[in-house]
Amino acid sequence: MREYPFQQEFQVRDYECDMQGHVNHAVYLNYLEHCRHEFIKKLGLDYSELVRRGISLVIIRAEVDYKYSLRSGQHFVVGVILERVSPLRYRFIQDVYLLPEKKLVLRARVTGTGVSATGRPQLPQEISAALDKVS
Amino acid sequence: MREYPFQQEFQVRDYECDMQGHVNHAVYLNYLEHCRHEFIKKLGLDYSELVRRGISLVIIRAEVDYKYSLRSGQHFVVGVILERVSPLRYRFIQDVYLLPEKKLVLRARVTGTGVSATGRPQLPQEISAALDKVS
Amino acid sequence: MREYPFQQEFQVRDYECDMQGHVNHAVYLNYLEHCRHEFIKKLGLDYSELVRRGISLVIIRAEVDYKYSLRSGQHFVVGVILERVSPLRYRFIQDVYLLPEKKLVLRARVTGTGVSATGRPQLPQEISAALDKVS
Amino acid sequence: MREYPFQQEFQVRDYECDMQGHVNHAVYLNYLEHCRHEFIKKLGLDYSELVRRGISLVIIRAEVDYKYSLRSGQHFVVGVILERVSPLRYRFIQDVYLLPEKKLVLRARVTGTGVSATGRPQLPQEISAALDKVS
Repeated sequence: MREYPFQQEFQVRDYECDMQGHVNHAVYLNYLEHCRHEFIKKLGLDYSELVRRGISLVIIRAEVDYKYSLRSGQHFVVGVILERVSPLRYRFIQDVYLLPEKKLVLRARVTGTGVSATGRPQLPQEISAALDKVS
Repeated sequence: MREYPFQQEFQVRDYECDMQGHVNHAVYLNYLEHCRHEFIKKLGLDYSELVRRGISLVIIRAEVDYKYSLRSGQHFVVGVILERVSPLRYRFIQDVYLLPEKKLVLRARVTGTGVSATGRPQLPQEISAALDKVS
Repeated sequence: MREYPFQQEFQVRDYECDMQGHVNHAVYLNYLEHCRHEFIKKLGLDYSELVRRGISLVIIRAEVDYKYSLRSGQHFVVGVILERVSPLRYRFIQDVYLLPEKKLVLRARVTGTGVSATGRPQLPQEISAALDKVS
Repeated sequence: MREYPFQQEFQVRDYECDMQGHVNHAVYLNYLEHCRHEFIKKLGLDYSELVRRGISLVIIRAEVDYKYSLRSGQHFVVGVILERVSPLRYRFIQDVYLLPEKKLVLRARVTGTGVSATGRPQLPQEISAALDKVS
């Protein structure tokens, strides 16, 4: 397991499992989102407060490689690394590991940007400044 | 909008929208899954029956490019194309369009395979045969 | 099956099923909500537009009796009846039936009201007027 | 806040919030379920293992009174009390409180039973014995 500037631990809840008894593949995107939002909160950016102020952070691309299926009750950790990929785009490298053995569960790359009220790409300077501290 | 061997229409439900008033990005994976399962049902493969028989179809990679955010009440269609990428792997090309104007909402590529009870890649011949009819 | 002023048909999607292979009990509240929102839309009330205008419709009580568990792919219908229970409160009587046999799946009673920006119960006259047409 | 034999703490995740910025009312049933499953796990009953053994624990009635709407990032605790209501039925009294002020968020009463493979009410003696230790 590599080093990450931010990590978040979770436990699988039974309602997240599908009829195979595994966490449904879409649910991992919820885990990844929660980890990203907790990460940026530590950088001073509260997602829900940004929404109230009319600033939309949106996902424009997600790539996920699923390696192992989590099951009921398992504990896992999500690590996240942030990269700036252009003036307006940031990429979150996110990896999930089963605990305690740190077996790789999935690798994801999630690219986001900001959007103005009229739908044009736009990232307020306060957000760029906060993200650039760790990217 | 290109031609697809299978299409499924949906309408956004309010509980699928997040605090921005958009469909949450993870919810699209639910839509895509439902479309795939309806598609393979038409090919004679019932996902839930396969699960009961101990045959696991799993997603090993998903790539999604988000172009436009759906909102409350909007109607949309998911088109799907199937490609065989190796003896054991199939890729679903899935595109989502807003209706009625057919504006592109997202493009996805979802790769799946089968897994035996012991976790090894395995695809029963009946499944390969059914999928090969359209890939 | 009794008569309802509004009915909505659905089909179970596989991602709504839990590890027992049944629709998870919480998911029915999603179905019921979607049916209520489609019902009030027919009365001229668009839930998402009300939210944008700062009008909060909230659920204050839900009672659900589960009689039968829906499974993958099943079709069902939700019927809804509206009752005014006080100047500010409305109760939705909602019943779910498996199709085509109309076997009873669940009975629910969901009570809602409106809340002002400061959190006090409040129901704009346009909403009362629309709901009173069918209650 | 009264005394409960079991309590579980949670934090609201952004994907659980709807377009009003509140936790959607159906999501609380997920929280309540997770709390119940953690509670019975402490009594020696693992829900997912019971499912694998063909023992279905099902919810037959849920009543929820919503008092306050949780928002992004808030911490809360779910307390649970178990009551036996008949030879085959158990009722979970579940209350949710906002932290740290312990403001009441909701009160719920959730009744469950066991169902045999043929759909008849049935509760294996090991389950009754475990639940009776705390009811």
